[in-house]
Amino acid sequence: VTGFHSAPRAALIAIGTELLADGRHDTNGVTLARILASIGIETVSRMMVVDDEQEIAVALEEASERVALVIATGGLGPTVDDVTREGASRAFHLELHPDERILAALRQRYAALGRTFSDLSARQALVPRGAEILSNAVGTAPGLLLARPHGRLVALLPGVPHEMESMMRDQLVARLTAAWPERPLLSRGIKVAGLTEVEVQTRLGDLLDPLLDQGGGPRRGSVTLLAAPGEVSVMFRGKDEQHLDEIHRQARVRIGDDIFTDDMEAALEAVVGQLLVSRGLTTAVAESCTGGMLAALLTRTPGSSRWFRQGWVTYSDESKISELGVDPELIRRHGAVSAQVADAMAKAARRRSGTDFGLSITGIAGPDGGTREKPVGIVYLSLADSGGSLATRHRFAGDREAIRLIACKTALERLRRRVLSVTPR
Amino acid sequence: VTGFHSAPRAALIAIGTELLADGRHDTNGVTLARILASIGIETVSRMMVVDDEQEIAVALEEASERVALVIATGGLGPTVDDVTREGASRAFHLELHPDERILAALRQRYAALGRTFSDLSARQALVPRGAEILSNAVGTAPGLLLARPHGRLVALLPGVPHEMESMMRDQLVARLTAAWPERPLLSRGIKVAGLTEVEVQTRLGDLLDPLLDQGGGPRRGSVTLLAAPGEVSVMFRGKDEQHLDEIHRQARVRIGDDIFTDDMEAALEAVVGQLLVSRGLTTAVAESCTGGMLAALLTRTPGSSRWFRQGWVTYSDESKISELGVDPELIRRHGAVSAQVADAMAKAARRRSGTDFGLSITGIAGPDGGTREKPVGIVYLSLADSGGSLATRHRFAGDREAIRLIACKTALERLRRRVLSVTPR
Repeated sequence: VTGFHSAPRAALIAIGTELLADGRHDTNGVTLARILASIGIETVSRMMVVDDEQEIAVALEEASERVALVIATGGLGPTVDDVTREGASRAFHLELHPDERILAALRQRYAALGRTFSDLSARQALVPRGAEILSNAVGTAPGLLLARPHGRLVALLPGVPHEMESMMRDQLVARLTAAWPERPLLSRGIKVAGLTEVEVQTRLGDLLDPLLDQGGGPRRGSVTLLAAPGEVSVMFRGKDEQHLDEIHRQARVRIGDDIFTDDMEAALEAVVGQLLVSRGLTTAVAESCTGGMLAALLTRTPGSSRWFRQGWVTYSDESKISELGVDPELIRRHGAVSAQVADAMAKAARRRSGTDFGLSITGIAGPDGGTREKPVGIVYLSLADSGGSLATRHRFAGDREAIRLIACKTALERLRRRVLSVTPR
Repeated sequence: VTGFHSAPRAALIAIGTELLADGRHDTNGVTLARILASIGIETVSRMMVVDDEQEIAVALEEASERVALVIATGGLGPTVDDVTREGASRAFHLELHPDERILAALRQRYAALGRTFSDLSARQALVPRGAEILSNAVGTAPGLLLARPHGRLVALLPGVPHEMESMMRDQLVARLTAAWPERPLLSRGIKVAGLTEVEVQTRLGDLLDPLLDQGGGPRRGSVTLLAAPGEVSVMFRGKDEQHLDEIHRQARVRIGDDIFTDDMEAALEAVVGQLLVSRGLTTAVAESCTGGMLAALLTRTPGSSRWFRQGWVTYSDESKISELGVDPELIRRHGAVSAQVADAMAKAARRRSGTDFGLSITGIAGPDGGTREKPVGIVYLSLADSGGSLATRHRFAGDREAIRLIACKTALERLRRRVLSVTPR
């Protein structure tokens, strides 16, 4: 389809002064490169440009001369610093005109939300001549798709991450796979909980060699290990499907049950929720240092009322006593951060809510409050079921928010392991 | 000094396939943009390019035509995928030759570390004709500085962050301030809750004109509006401190109490926490659709036990009744998503925990569960204090996670406004 390159290559442009002046990370570029790789398109450059019409115009023009696909994100909003439309108009010599259907949709949306529709808001309806409109299902600014000579494409997407991602997945991906049906880049992946990045790599061992550039024989693909708090993702990429499947199969054997999913988009909390539903089980939680984060993760997935009933955020000693009936003597003897109190919290959460499981977290997230015996990062988790409860002691590293998140993920992983041992209904 | 622009502008290029394929963040670009701003040089673009000689050559050439200063990082090491030297040689038609002094220094360094000096290692001594050498005090690869026509400069720095930063601060900054004796770029900002991006801009009105590129008079700086769920940030930048301070002062007058902070690093939840502490007040929360997220935000800041006591995640109707004593008749008559239930939850949270405030959220986060009367995005918030409680109805847009976050931020903003009206102790 393209006139110049068999496998299309992409350049991404993120527009926004804040990306340059404030050092914010362009997360849209990471998301887009991942989605593009999944449909066989390699991203060869990513750029961040200030909100300046001329800079945007030059970036768009130069990129569209180099590669078959340019995707720019940001600068499509209603305010005066949003000048991506104008930049594209200048780059490709396409006049801007207001689109009546977008105007009508914008008016309707603003009215539904009870917001005033002004001249500024109307700027979002400006469209370069000949552009195809990508509707925005979750926000106001529509996206735009420009067909360029030799089958090349230039897409302008909103900068708000969830708007960008839904437009990309729901509309643009279908257009791109239709234009370039080659799928040269395949990937397989696993997501692992409860192991560090180094532990994962050690278990995989020489399995990765054929995917690594060892300066010797031909490289058959690439591998990426990516660590997030409490989780490690491993992505294998290559062109030989059989070879990739074999590596994937062996990776599953070598790592085993610590793999919680093969779906790189699935979060641990969603996997746990699905496991609970499949077995008709429910859980409740009681949290201290994580302050509601565990409950917020468990309710993040739509339909979570099927497995989650309720949670207690018992941040103070008094609330542990009054709401969960924790024995004050237990707190006095062992401290609020202890296996004994974690057990009492987990049991009370299960008993009071009538769920199958009770999951609890109590710990010291820092930066203050640590002692020699219980330093910052010490966390006790407990899981209660019909057979009683079992508390475990952990020491997590990182700042306050990282410690809280790792504690939640570790608790979720404990619940996942326990649910796995229950025969599905 | 430059032939084309009074204040020099910079473009940054980060070289490395891992930045594109694995979605790693280019932290060097953030560091460099900050250092450049401190010496008055604005960064107008940042780019990431794969380890490909041709891609690097095009990126360097195009950037050096656009701006007075180009700084590229990475690709100067000894391995075969390090091809920045070759890319620069191709871009500017400058032959590469081995530099004897670099070779001698490299041999000495490798010997001191007990490492073998190979032909690969010797690649680091290749220098484009006429380049000035920047020595590497903390690593092996030297940097290179190329003088281009019209006083423009192209610098090639190593990709290892601490090597790059030490070379930038110890050698390049002096060269740049000698070439362009500029005043530093200063910034002022405000963060606003409870208003949309358009409402903020409408209130600021013509105040922003001197900072915007309106095609007319000289631009005295820049302005960025950035919307996050429930918040809008406005950042003013320029070189004239008095002028910036005046704009900042007027912005505060025009927007007033909706500004919750001038500190661009301060989150709304931290501001609310500090306000509560300053007045010796405490709060508790009761959440349904946000499932613990409000409590997790309130406990995100260190020391939050001073203002936050406890929270209830009453996700099911039964838990609202059993834990918070909500009248079942109220739920039957008005539904769990109603002003009446929100009020009952807020009052119960306050009463049961003995705090000054009780804050509640109940709503429909979606994607399912909406009705014609109460569509997805409908959220009731209530704030209870000694005088009773007041529930408000809201309609939020976005996906499930966005609706939940905006609901939390809106609840925090209601609490902030209420606390502001209390005289500090």
